[in-house]
Amino acid sequence: MSVIYNRVALIGLGLIASSMFWAMKRRGLAGEVTGFARSAETRETARRIGLCDRVFDTAREAVEGADLVVLCVPVGVMGDVVAEIASALKPGATLTDVGSVKRDVIENVTPHLPENVHFIPGHPIAGTEHSGPESGFAELFDNRWLLLVPVEGSDPDAIARLRHLWEEIGSNVEEMEAEHHDLVLAVTSHAPHLIAYTMVGVADDLRRVTDSEVIKYSAAGFRDFTRIAASDPTMWRDVFLTNKDATLEILGRFTEELFALQRAIRTGDGEHLHDYFTRTRAIRRSIIEAGQDTDAPDFGRGKRSK
Amino acid sequence: MSVIYNRVALIGLGLIASSMFWAMKRRGLAGEVTGFARSAETRETARRIGLCDRVFDTAREAVEGADLVVLCVPVGVMGDVVAEIASALKPGATLTDVGSVKRDVIENVTPHLPENVHFIPGHPIAGTEHSGPESGFAELFDNRWLLLVPVEGSDPDAIARLRHLWEEIGSNVEEMEAEHHDLVLAVTSHAPHLIAYTMVGVADDLRRVTDSEVIKYSAAGFRDFTRIAASDPTMWRDVFLTNKDATLEILGRFTEELFALQRAIRTGDGEHLHDYFTRTRAIRRSIIEAGQDTDAPDFGRGKRSK
Repeated sequence: MSVIYNRVALIGLGLIASSMFWAMKRRGLAGEVTGFARSAETRETARRIGLCDRVFDTAREAVEGADLVVLCVPVGVMGDVVAEIASALKPGATLTDVGSVKRDVIENVTPHLPENVHFIPGHPIAGTEHSGPESGFAELFDNRWLLLVPVEGSDPDAIARLRHLWEEIGSNVEEMEAEHHDLVLAVTSHAPHLIAYTMVGVADDLRRVTDSEVIKYSAAGFRDFTRIAASDPTMWRDVFLTNKDATLEILGRFTEELFALQRAIRTGDGEHLHDYFTRTRAIRRSIIEAGQDTDAPDFGRGKRSK
Repeated sequence: MSVIYNRVALIGLGLIASSMFWAMKRRGLAGEVTGFARSAETRETARRIGLCDRVFDTAREAVEGADLVVLCVPVGVMGDVVAEIASALKPGATLTDVGSVKRDVIENVTPHLPENVHFIPGHPIAGTEHSGPESGFAELFDNRWLLLVPVEGSDPDAIARLRHLWEEIGSNVEEMEAEHHDLVLAVTSHAPHLIAYTMVGVADDLRRVTDSEVIKYSAAGFRDFTRIAASDPTMWRDVFLTNKDATLEILGRFTEELFALQRAIRTGDGEHLHDYFTRTRAIRRSIIEAGQDTDAPDFGRGKRSK
């Protein structure tokens, strides 16, 4: 047991908040964890499964006396939530968030911040396609990256303490500037999600290929797309609307490349295709070497034997 | 032990052939399995790891006396391989393939077929991003689909026997018409692969987002794309060139939908995005219910505990 914050308040009780709770409990990192969710049903579920030591019916009650407040709500409502809780925040408290977009959150939260509260935006690069209070598990952040995006004038001690918490939760922590964060994530996460959503939508639309066939024969490629495209609709709507510029820029690049490959297919330019596919294969090897995925032949989905 | 074919010849010794070998061994489905690979290095590896009972230096020797010959080479060379082995095939033998495209393979193989050989095209809907003789494992086909695409006048007994083999290997077998197969696969596999290749290529091109950042922060979305984009370049070049029409048709639909979503992002139409993402989420649920993927919160990549 090594308590880092006496009291932590989780605002929003979905996948990330519930995983944080179980991860903090696992190692006794918080004296007490309070929670709040907008939906009465979510609060009831949280109470039933023991998610948070106390669940409150208002966000203001949940943050009262908290040394750390973690905003785990969709990025589109971060500003509104802070406006609501601002005057209830404890002087000297740290406020952080887990949103996938940083510039927009900073712009919307900053105007409501009390002077004596440390705002340190954050983003855990971890998730699954599941959502809600029952989807969390303690290992979600193990060996995953947590990006801290401190704003101008952030208190070094407050940053160090928040970094310590995330490291004890299991993450590797790095600091990054907000604009750059949003571009990197547009490449590694936001554009791929939109593309996956699109492809799954196309399949759903095709009347000649019946639903059951798409579903039955979805072993390769498409199956992974459907998993990505099963992510929380509200969260992702907000991500695209708040990281509009970077996402549209990357999608523009994507379309350009896709057209070039389509042309190669149409003209039968096998060499272009082979070269392109050989290059992308090398990137995969780097990711496995970086420890961010498994090399198991069945993706770790079953056991191997020969 | 229930031998279905006394002698099976595997032509091409990559992921599919090696997995078939281990799956047949597991249940004693073949009296003897012979093998051939074009590359001397692959043949050496096969001999070293015990892949096939006998590995031959020519395809003609490998197929001599075989009751079943399985073509496990890229779809672009199926016709050439059959031209080479045709006169060495045993009268009454069954010839099948495992290619991801069917119409083109049928067109290129049929002209070389001896009259007394039963050609029954097939396609196991199973795979990983790995390739080569050491990538196979016996469970690859367990509970996966195997599509048989019999040509006109195929012998019902020969079809029934091949179906029996694949069922004993672990697959669920269905029959499908070639054109329809190629369209369904364009949706569920070919277009998604090209899209994944494209996105990974875009990330690689972006100089402002350094390679190491793309790799480090690839937790969500992009990581799955890199796995798909690590698949065998030669195999996939051939798939796109031989299933050109269906792939280009689906990619056209994809681009159309992508542009509509881009417009929704640009104009801030959150309702359009939310509706679209809600619809795609439902497809995922159907796939899990159909038993074609796991619902584990961490994709089965680690163990869960609370």
